[in-house]
Amino acid sequence: MRPSAIVLVSGGLDSATALGWATTQFQHILPVNIYYGQRHSKETFAAEQLCDHYGLASPLHLDFSQPFAMIGGSSLTSGSIHGNPSQELVERTPSDLPPTFVPGRNMVFLAAVAGLGYVHRIYDIVGGWNAVDYSGYPDCRPEFFAAAERALGEALVHPLTIHTPLISLTKQEIIELGTKLDVPYRLTWSCYSGGGAPCGQCDSCVIRRDGFAAAKLPDPALTAATS
Amino acid sequence: MRPSAIVLVSGGLDSATALGWATTQFQHILPVNIYYGQRHSKETFAAEQLCDHYGLASPLHLDFSQPFAMIGGSSLTSGSIHGNPSQELVERTPSDLPPTFVPGRNMVFLAAVAGLGYVHRIYDIVGGWNAVDYSGYPDCRPEFFAAAERALGEALVHPLTIHTPLISLTKQEIIELGTKLDVPYRLTWSCYSGGGAPCGQCDSCVIRRDGFAAAKLPDPALTAATS
Repeated sequence: MRPSAIVLVSGGLDSATALGWATTQFQHILPVNIYYGQRHSKETFAAEQLCDHYGLASPLHLDFSQPFAMIGGSSLTSGSIHGNPSQELVERTPSDLPPTFVPGRNMVFLAAVAGLGYVHRIYDIVGGWNAVDYSGYPDCRPEFFAAAERALGEALVHPLTIHTPLISLTKQEIIELGTKLDVPYRLTWSCYSGGGAPCGQCDSCVIRRDGFAAAKLPDPALTAATS
Repeated sequence: MRPSAIVLVSGGLDSATALGWATTQFQHILPVNIYYGQRHSKETFAAEQLCDHYGLASPLHLDFSQPFAMIGGSSLTSGSIHGNPSQELVERTPSDLPPTFVPGRNMVFLAAVAGLGYVHRIYDIVGGWNAVDYSGYPDCRPEFFAAAERALGEALVHPLTIHTPLISLTKQEIIELGTKLDVPYRLTWSCYSGGGAPCGQCDSCVIRRDGFAAAKLPDPALTAATS
């Protein structure tokens, strides 16, 4: 096993699977949970529970909500531009990418955790990024991660590796991998709403449900919620 | 002239010079001022004044103080690690780089303003980065900016250009360029302390003083402070 990695843990199914994978690859794990103005606190709670399950310390919380509110342009962060930029610079969201695309997001996150890793002398970063289900996000493609590795290696004058164990898996394959790794999916949260139980209607719930159905497995989070 | 650029304006001498240069190259400028827990509000005030001088709107403020406090490792942000990472992950600052090096900083900033630029369809970024006076910072080297351009181009599936007009200039040459461009150096702030006038003792004051002396020019900020 390799010594240490930083793992990005959002509380969702994909990053939980990446965390489960990381525990089989690295002796020590520094979990990081990132808030950037999205949704609600259910995900953060799920991230805490997942880390606790694996005997890890509480994740380090990085809060990028202010910058991403200013950047705007995404339905996930729904920021409006303050500061009165000149009239020629009216906010326009390019229409050729999904409205949930948060421009700059993954590069900001990777640069921040690479900086954190540098302080701790950790040069392995693990995340649940996936190019299949959200193929509209350009910063979830292998080409992006390869270029980001090079840029961060230059920034820190030290090679570093971004591990993307789920990058080419379908949701079904992710769930099958996680189930094999005993990932506690009952602790994860995927729903866009923050109610007591998943809504079952939003895109994220539907993708998750279809994934478990394709894997011919029950969703332990639903069982936990209804039992 | 090219249409639009985002210019990073810190309030210091270098970014003021980069801003002055940008006004000769771009029709529209979106100024951005970034706070990451450094120093005091004098710099931000100077950034506002510089933008006002050039007839620009107030700069857009991005606040990265929370993440950089968590990242720690730099004397500029002096963060300590919260969240109790496991004992094996004790904070250690690598000693082969200056203590003022903020790991990840420039890549975080560039990714954020690239995201902002994407929303506004601006793919030119200008900053006062310099590889000469602070040659210990790996993320101020041309190799880093070239790699960052590629990574951000992949992240946004659009080519973008990072302009570093000062990258290979000495402080003397920067001041000579800025003087030629009529950059209002009286409005800039370089001192690490936030007093009424520059302290004249800190590294930043000394580098600035030596630069003006080498250029055989008076420092208008000192004249303004003492008059």
